[in-house]
Amino acid sequence: MKNIDVCLTPDLLHHHNINNSIVVVTDIFRATSCMVTGFAYGVQSIIPVASVEECAEYQKRGYIAAAERNAEKVEGFDLDNSPFSFMDERLVGNKIAMTTTNGTLSITKSKKNAVKVIVGAFLNLQAVVNYLKAQPYDVLVLCAGWKGRPNLEDTLFAGAVVEALRDEYFVAEDAAILAMRAYEASRENMPLYLSNSSHIRRLQRLGINKDITYCLQKDLYDIVPILRGNELVLV
Amino acid sequence: MKNIDVCLTPDLLHHHNINNSIVVVTDIFRATSCMVTGFAYGVQSIIPVASVEECAEYQKRGYIAAAERNAEKVEGFDLDNSPFSFMDERLVGNKIAMTTTNGTLSITKSKKNAVKVIVGAFLNLQAVVNYLKAQPYDVLVLCAGWKGRPNLEDTLFAGAVVEALRDEYFVAEDAAILAMRAYEASRENMPLYLSNSSHIRRLQRLGINKDITYCLQKDLYDIVPILRGNELVLV
Repeated sequence: MKNIDVCLTPDLLHHHNINNSIVVVTDIFRATSCMVTGFAYGVQSIIPVASVEECAEYQKRGYIAAAERNAEKVEGFDLDNSPFSFMDERLVGNKIAMTTTNGTLSITKSKKNAVKVIVGAFLNLQAVVNYLKAQPYDVLVLCAGWKGRPNLEDTLFAGAVVEALRDEYFVAEDAAILAMRAYEASRENMPLYLSNSSHIRRLQRLGINKDITYCLQKDLYDIVPILRGNELVLV
Repeated sequence: MKNIDVCLTPDLLHHHNINNSIVVVTDIFRATSCMVTGFAYGVQSIIPVASVEECAEYQKRGYIAAAERNAEKVEGFDLDNSPFSFMDERLVGNKIAMTTTNGTLSITKSKKNAVKVIVGAFLNLQAVVNYLKAQPYDVLVLCAGWKGRPNLEDTLFAGAVVEALRDEYFVAEDAAILAMRAYEASRENMPLYLSNSSHIRRLQRLGINKDITYCLQKDLYDIVPILRGNELVLV
């Protein structure tokens, strides 16, 4: 039987042996929701990079560049970190370089040891679940969190994946059980469950309620972005 | 307004500024439940030490020594890590040196920066809450977890503390909200909520179901152990 586990923040990734695992990186608000949206709207590839400087280098080389820090766009870049910015037809068929406060770091941290790294969001939840079921590997859902700390929305997504796989996978560890229980408690009204979360308040201060509503929608897109070399592409 | 936050494992403690905080260390199965029980039964003081070697040194100097690793007693020591071992009248008025896999490390890690370090368990939940309310400091509940990972039972205790203080404290961070929500979902039947947790399974393999039942009882003892120098004593 395959195992599924959850890592609540990249700061705890060293506790997980991922040599036989597909890592599902999630950063619901908003990096992985942006990525999934971009691919759904025709982006060719996304290069996740850890630093703003590296992102600027790609911009000079002709990439469309998206850089976010502290939930806001970094000056001089082409795109901010709103999923609605990724619905732009100028992006169709193009390559994007992207750096965000939490999400891209989680991808770069996972790629060294994992069998595969894929990108998950509520927007492509079922597609991710279907993909994982068809693979022979264990699963680790890696929550990007916020600056090393756990956050609610990524934990809920992790719980949704665990809940969907619980009959076919061994759910061994407490973080996975905790995430699954949190998701079960939230599913009737996820916005309410999240209403006091730190990042919701952060985003609301920035006036981006519509991003929140959008990112909590399930299964809008039947696609799975996967890391090949340094680039995310569609499976 | 005072703040309350939760740290799900000592591996994330570096993200928390505890210079104005009382840290409540909890290790429900079973270090802090043992400590609370010991004090309730008349122990004079407990020295938490990080290593087995250090614990052996205290034993040579006449302390009663308790050493646990991987949920089992280390050979050559006087006490194991069962709360029932701390109900022994030979301990009355005596000093104990104690090392455990997770709990004592959390105490030694907190003491450098925190205003005060106290010991919490379900057994003294209300006493801890009353003590915190009477103090002017912020609160961080530090879950000992299991070898650097979060666990369910410590998270539930943290959530119980947050829930009890939520009207008088600012609950700002997602880990605190997550813990509180988990506690609320578990309170009707905590043993059921915990039934698949990793540590419950570990303890059941060792045949110590009665320890589990005992450690989940609330408010048996109206006492608060606090760290003074290197020793835990009663407040």
